[in-house]
Amino acid sequence: MIYFDNSATTRPYKEVLDSFVKVSSEFFGNPSSLHGLGLQAEKLLTQARTQVANLLAVKPTEVYFTSGGTESNNLAIKGTAMLDKNKGKHLILSSVEHPSVRGAMEQLQNLGFDITYLPADQTGRVMVEDVKASIKKDTILVSVMQVNNEVGTIQPIAEIGRLLKQYPTILFHVDAVQAVGKVPLNLIENGVDLCSFSAHKFHGLKGTGALFIREGVRLDPLLSGGNQEWKVRSGTENVAGAVAMAKALRMTIEKSEKGFEKMKRVKSLLREGLSRIDGLTINTPLENSAPHILNFSISGVKAEVLIHTLEQKGIYLSTTSACSSKKQLPSQTLLAMGVPDDLADSAFRISLSYDNTEDEAEKVIVAIEEAAKQLRKVMK
Amino acid sequence: MIYFDNSATTRPYKEVLDSFVKVSSEFFGNPSSLHGLGLQAEKLLTQARTQVANLLAVKPTEVYFTSGGTESNNLAIKGTAMLDKNKGKHLILSSVEHPSVRGAMEQLQNLGFDITYLPADQTGRVMVEDVKASIKKDTILVSVMQVNNEVGTIQPIAEIGRLLKQYPTILFHVDAVQAVGKVPLNLIENGVDLCSFSAHKFHGLKGTGALFIREGVRLDPLLSGGNQEWKVRSGTENVAGAVAMAKALRMTIEKSEKGFEKMKRVKSLLREGLSRIDGLTINTPLENSAPHILNFSISGVKAEVLIHTLEQKGIYLSTTSACSSKKQLPSQTLLAMGVPDDLADSAFRISLSYDNTEDEAEKVIVAIEEAAKQLRKVMK
Repeated sequence: MIYFDNSATTRPYKEVLDSFVKVSSEFFGNPSSLHGLGLQAEKLLTQARTQVANLLAVKPTEVYFTSGGTESNNLAIKGTAMLDKNKGKHLILSSVEHPSVRGAMEQLQNLGFDITYLPADQTGRVMVEDVKASIKKDTILVSVMQVNNEVGTIQPIAEIGRLLKQYPTILFHVDAVQAVGKVPLNLIENGVDLCSFSAHKFHGLKGTGALFIREGVRLDPLLSGGNQEWKVRSGTENVAGAVAMAKALRMTIEKSEKGFEKMKRVKSLLREGLSRIDGLTINTPLENSAPHILNFSISGVKAEVLIHTLEQKGIYLSTTSACSSKKQLPSQTLLAMGVPDDLADSAFRISLSYDNTEDEAEKVIVAIEEAAKQLRKVMK
Repeated sequence: MIYFDNSATTRPYKEVLDSFVKVSSEFFGNPSSLHGLGLQAEKLLTQARTQVANLLAVKPTEVYFTSGGTESNNLAIKGTAMLDKNKGKHLILSSVEHPSVRGAMEQLQNLGFDITYLPADQTGRVMVEDVKASIKKDTILVSVMQVNNEVGTIQPIAEIGRLLKQYPTILFHVDAVQAVGKVPLNLIENGVDLCSFSAHKFHGLKGTGALFIREGVRLDPLLSGGNQEWKVRSGTENVAGAVAMAKALRMTIEKSEKGFEKMKRVKSLLREGLSRIDGLTINTPLENSAPHILNFSISGVKAEVLIHTLEQKGIYLSTTSACSSKKQLPSQTLLAMGVPDDLADSAFRISLSYDNTEDEAEKVIVAIEEAAKQLRKVMK
C-alpha cells in the first residue's frame, strides 16, 4: 500500500496507540476525582500538556485540550465572538479556510455578525494589504490558516501577525492543523492569539486536538459544565488521548528534523514527474508551499474514477479535502485561486507523511500516467 | 483495590480497548475519504451506529456520535435554543441537573433566554405538577436527567414525557449519562426527543459519547465544518471510539441482564451496613433510585479526609460528583433535597459497576465504620 492521503488522516504511530492503551487501562481515573486514581490521571494530563506546550514553545497554561481541529476552530471563533460581541461584531477570514472555520463564521453571520472574506491570489495566498484594508473599527478577529489543506499554500502569518500588532483589540486565530510538524509555527513571535491543532493529522488519534490560547485571551466556552480546562472546555478530560497526542507530536517533530529534506525531495520528484504528464497541471505553487501537499488537475479525467483506478494498484490519494470530497463540489480553494471550473473539478491531492519514500513517488508517477492515458481512451 | 467510584468514571473493558486498537491501527481511514480505506472506516462507523441504535431501541439515523456527555448535553440544549429562538425563549430544567446542563442553561440566560429551575422533593425527585405549572407559551425545551449523578434518584421521565406529549412544540431532553445500562430507558415510549450518553461511564473510552435525536427534531450545530453526522456534529469521526462505545454498551447491557440483581444486593448490603454506623445518614432514597448509587453523610467527618483514609486501604469512593469535587462547594442536589449544609458538606458517594461484589461491600462497610470512629476521635 502506498498511502498518499495524510492530510485526510494519518495512521497512528504504534507507540502512540501503546501509550493510549497503557493510560486507559492502568490510569483510568477521572482527573477531577479527589482520590489517588484521580490524582494520577491529573498528573498525566499535566505532563501531556507540558510536553505539548514545550513542543509548541508556549506555556502549559496556554494549551487547551479539545476533541479535534473542528472543535478548536469553532471554539476559537465562536468563543471570541460570543465574549466580545459587545466590543465589536466584525470578523475576517480568508476565502481558502477549512470548512470548520467557514462554517463557524456562517453561523455567526446568521446571528447578525459581519463577516469579510479575504481574496486569495493565484497561488492561494492571502495578501497582507487585503487584511489591512478589511479592518474596521469593530473588527474583533482575523482567522487565516497557516497551510492550506487542499493545495498546501503557506499563508503570510508572520506578516499578518506584524500588521495586527498595531490593532491590539483584534485577536489573531491561525488554523495550524496542516502546518504543525511541517512548517515552523513561531506562535509567540508571530503574534498569534489562538491556534488550532488536530492529533490525527500527525499520527495521533481521532477525537483529540488542542487549542492554543495566548495568556490573557478569554473565550466564551462552547461546552459548559464541570469547568475542566480552566472553564474554557468542560467535559471529563480524555487523558489517554492527550498523552497519545503529546507523544505523536513529539515523534512527528523528531521525524521532521531528520525527514524534512527527504519529504521535500519526494515532493519535488512528484512535481517534476507529474508535470510531464500530458494534460496535467500542478495547482500547488512552487514557492510558499508546505513540503507535504501537492495538488494537480488532469483535464478530461474524472477525479473519482482515477482515485478508484489507483486504488486497485494499492495507491491512496484524494480529490480535494476529505471533508469536501463527498459533497461533489469543486474545491473552494482552487476556485478562489482562479483555477477554471473544469480543472477544479478534476483536482487531486497527494499528501505525504515522513514515512513516504522516493521509491513510492516513482511508482505513483508511473501509475498516474498509465491510469490517465487509459481513462482518457475510455472516455473518448 | 475496591473501586466504588464508577459514576465518576469506569475502567474500560479489555475487549473495548482491543476493539479501539484494532480499528485505529487497521482501519484508520477518514470516513469522508472516497477511497477504500475511507469506505472501510465509514462501514465500521455505520455498524457501530446501528449497534448502539439497536441497544437503545431507536433508529441508526437517530444516533449522533459526540465527544461525550458534556458535549451531548450542550448540543441538545444550545442546539435547540439557537434553532428555535424565534419560536420561544423559555427553557425548563430541574435544580438537580448535571453541571453541563446547568452551565449550558446559564450561558443561554446570558444571551437573553428565560430559564426556570424546577424544585426537587426531599428524595431529589422532580414533581410532574411542577413541570406542568412552569410551562409557558414560549417554552421550547424541558431538560430532566433520568438518574441523578450524586444521589441516584430516578426521575419520573415517563410521566413528564406523557405530560409533554400534550405540548408538541416543546422538546424533551433527558440526560441519561448515569442511567444507561442501569435502568430502562424506553426513549420512544417516553416521548424523549433528545437523550445524552457518555461512554466512559459504562466502560467505554473517555472522549466518546452520543446524542439521541428523535427523527424530525432539528438542532443548530455547536461544531460546524465538514458536515459529518448529518451536519449536526462536524469533525472527523472518531471511528475507533464509536466502535469501542458500541462494544462497551453491548457488554454493559449483557452484564446488566445477569448482574442487575447482584448489584441491587450489593447496594442493599451497603445501605443496611452503613446505616448502622453512628452518625451516618443515607441520602439516597429507598424508592425510585438507581441500583448503583448510594449517597450518605457522616456528621462531624470531613469528607476529603475520609476519602484519603479509605484510599490507604485501597478503597476508592468520592465526595459528591467528580465534576464538583474540586470546587469544594456543597452538593447542589443535596441542598435542593433540603439536606442541612453540614451534612451536605460531609457527603459521600458510592457508585457500583456490575463487577463489584458483596464481599467488597462487606469490606467497605467495616472500613468506613473504623475510619469514621478514628476520624471522630482525632477531631475531638
